[in-house]
Amino acid sequence: MPDPDRPSPAAARTGSGSGRRPSAAAGRYGGRPTMKDVAARAGVGLKTVSRVVNGEPGVTADTESRVRAAIEALGFRRNDSARILRKGRTASIGLVLEDLADPFYSPLSRAVEEVARANGSLLFAGSSAEVPAREQELALALCARRVDGLVIVPAGEDHRYLEPEMAAGVATVFLDRPAQRVEADTVLTDNADGARRAVAHLIAHGHRRIGFVGDRSAIHTAGERLRGYREAMARAGLPVDEAWVAMGPTDPDRVRAGLDRMLSGPHPVTAVFAGNNRVTVTAVRVLYGRPGPVALVGFDDFELADLLRPGVTVIAQDPARLGRTAAELLFRRLDGDDSPPRRVELAADLLVRGSGEIPPAG
Amino acid sequence: MPDPDRPSPAAARTGSGSGRRPSAAAGRYGGRPTMKDVAARAGVGLKTVSRVVNGEPGVTADTESRVRAAIEALGFRRNDSARILRKGRTASIGLVLEDLADPFYSPLSRAVEEVARANGSLLFAGSSAEVPAREQELALALCARRVDGLVIVPAGEDHRYLEPEMAAGVATVFLDRPAQRVEADTVLTDNADGARRAVAHLIAHGHRRIGFVGDRSAIHTAGERLRGYREAMARAGLPVDEAWVAMGPTDPDRVRAGLDRMLSGPHPVTAVFAGNNRVTVTAVRVLYGRPGPVALVGFDDFELADLLRPGVTVIAQDPARLGRTAAELLFRRLDGDDSPPRRVELAADLLVRGSGEIPPAG
Repeated sequence: MPDPDRPSPAAARTGSGSGRRPSAAAGRYGGRPTMKDVAARAGVGLKTVSRVVNGEPGVTADTESRVRAAIEALGFRRNDSARILRKGRTASIGLVLEDLADPFYSPLSRAVEEVARANGSLLFAGSSAEVPAREQELALALCARRVDGLVIVPAGEDHRYLEPEMAAGVATVFLDRPAQRVEADTVLTDNADGARRAVAHLIAHGHRRIGFVGDRSAIHTAGERLRGYREAMARAGLPVDEAWVAMGPTDPDRVRAGLDRMLSGPHPVTAVFAGNNRVTVTAVRVLYGRPGPVALVGFDDFELADLLRPGVTVIAQDPARLGRTAAELLFRRLDGDDSPPRRVELAADLLVRGSGEIPPAG
Repeated sequence: MPDPDRPSPAAARTGSGSGRRPSAAAGRYGGRPTMKDVAARAGVGLKTVSRVVNGEPGVTADTESRVRAAIEALGFRRNDSARILRKGRTASIGLVLEDLADPFYSPLSRAVEEVARANGSLLFAGSSAEVPAREQELALALCARRVDGLVIVPAGEDHRYLEPEMAAGVATVFLDRPAQRVEADTVLTDNADGARRAVAHLIAHGHRRIGFVGDRSAIHTAGERLRGYREAMARAGLPVDEAWVAMGPTDPDRVRAGLDRMLSGPHPVTAVFAGNNRVTVTAVRVLYGRPGPVALVGFDDFELADLLRPGVTVIAQDPARLGRTAAELLFRRLDGDDSPPRRVELAADLLVRGSGEIPPAG
C-alpha cells in the first residue's frame, strides 16, 4: 500500500543528491542504487555513467574517476544491474501497448523507438491484450529487467502497483489513456473534442439520426468518444435513440451486428460515427456494400482511406506525434526534469474525403 | 571466433544431462547455470522449474524437493537470474523485427505473442530498422535480460555472434529470412516460388513487358523475389530490359521514380510486379491515378486491398502463420526437441482480385 507521506513520484524520482530516496519510503526496490544515483552523485549525465560502465569512449579521465568514485561509494557494482552492465548491457526503455497488431500502434511504436534510439536506448515492446493483469505483469517484468523508463498504454484502472518502481527512479509516461490512482505524466489525444467535431460535421451535412459504434465502454478512449458523441447530439438538440449506440469489442461480427441494428428498425440512422480504426474498416465493408448511401466518419486515420471510393472522412490522431511526445517527455525526466507530472492533450484533425459529406438518404 | 570443434548450436542446446555444456567451449555465458540446466538435472520440464522458482502452485512436494536440490547443486540461486526470479520474474522470449511500423509484422508479432502467452511466457519485441549492428545489439540485450528464446527477423549477414547464446541454451529461430553462417531453425515463405507465380499470372494474361519494383537487393526476401521474377520471364522466353527492374529502399519517392522510369521510354511496361506491401501501396497510388490501365500484382496482402477498385491481386504470405510456426518451433526446442535444425518453407497464395487481370494496353 502506498505511503501517503511519500513525496509524489515525480518529486521522488527527480530529486537530486543525498537523501532523495529515504530507505523507509522507497518501496521494495528502494535499496538498489541506480545509474541515475551514480550520475547524481558524480554530477554528470546518465549517458556519461553509461559510457564509463560500458567502457565506451568520450569520457575524460577526470570525469571517469568521479564516476568510478560514485560507483564505489554507492555500492553500485554489487547489484545485478551492474553485473549485467559490465557484460555490455545497454540502456533501455519499455513500451506496453494494448495490441501489437493494431495498425494505430505501428507508427506510435516506431516514434517511441526512434526517440529511444536518439537517446542511446533500446526499446522493448509488449502488449497487454487489454488485460489489466497482463499490463501489470509486463510492466513489472520490464522493470525487473532494469529498464530506465516505461511508456504505458494502460489497460488497467489502478496503477498504484507502479509506485515503487516510479519511486525507485523508473520514469513512467502514460500514453493514449490516463494513469489511474497515481500521479504521472500523461500524453493523450483530446478524444471527446475529436468525437464532438466528427458528429458536428455529420450534423452540418444534414444528418439527424447518427449512430455510434465504439470500443468497450471501460476503455478510456471509447468512453471519451461516446461522451463527445452525446455532447454533440445534445448541443444540436438531437435525441439519441439507444439503438443507435453500440459499444463493445471491435471484432468484425460484433461491429456488423451493431451496424445492422442501427440501420434497421423504425428509426434507422443515416450516418455512422465509427469509434476507432478497427471499427471503421468493418464499417466500410458493411456500408460500402449497401444500396442506400450512409455517411461515415471514422476516428483514426488508416492507410488507403483516401483511395477508397468515396474516400473515408476521419478524425485523424497523429500516433507518431503521440509516441514522440511521450518518449521525449520520458527522456526529459531521465535527464533530470523534476517539474510536477504533466498532462499533454493533442488535438486531432478532421480530414474531409467524401464519406462524411454524403447527405441523408431520402 | 567460433571453435570449430564445438558441437553445433542445436546439439549443444538440446543435449541433456551432465557434461552437456563443457566449460571450455561454451562461450562467455557458459558458466551460468540456467533454468534448463535445473530442469535437466531434476528430470522435469522448464515450466515446473519456473513454478518452483516463482512459488506458483501445481507442483508436488516430491518434485519441488527434486527441483530445489538441483538448484542448490548447480548453484543456480547464486546468479543474477535467480535473484530476478526470486522477485517474481516471469519467463520471456524476445522478438527482433525489421520495422515495428510495417503492417506485415503486426499479425506476425501478435501470433508470436499468442504462442508465448499460451506457453506462459512474455514477449519483448524490438526492431533493427534493417541495421545489422542494431539487430545484434538488440538480440544480445535480450539475452542479457535472460530471455529463454529469440525469434529473429535478421537484418545482418553473419549470425555467429549468437553462437555463445545458443550454446548456452537460448532457443533461436530465424524468421522470414535465413540465418547466415550459423546452423539454426528457420521459417520462411518460399519467396522465389511466390514471385514466379505472380509473374506467370501476368504473362498468362497477355503481358510481355513486366516491371519489378523490389526492396534493396541485399535483403534476402527481395533477392529471392527478384530471382523468381527473372526465372518466370526466362521460362516464358521473355527478355528483361534492365530499365524494368527497380531495386532499392521502399520509400514512396524511390518507388515512384522507379515506376516512372519503367512506364516511360521506348519499351514501357504494361504490368508491374510490386515486391512487398510498402511498394504495392505506393504503386496503387501511382498506377490508379493514370489514364492508361497498368496491371499490378503485389507480394504480400494488405488491409482493404479487396475494397479498392479494381481490387489488388496479390501473392499473400500468411504472416500470422509464419509467426505461429516460428514460435511453436521455439517452444518445442525449449521443451527438449533436439532434432537437427529445421528449415520450414511456407507457400504463399495467389489472391485474384482484378488488378492482375487487366490485359495489356493497346
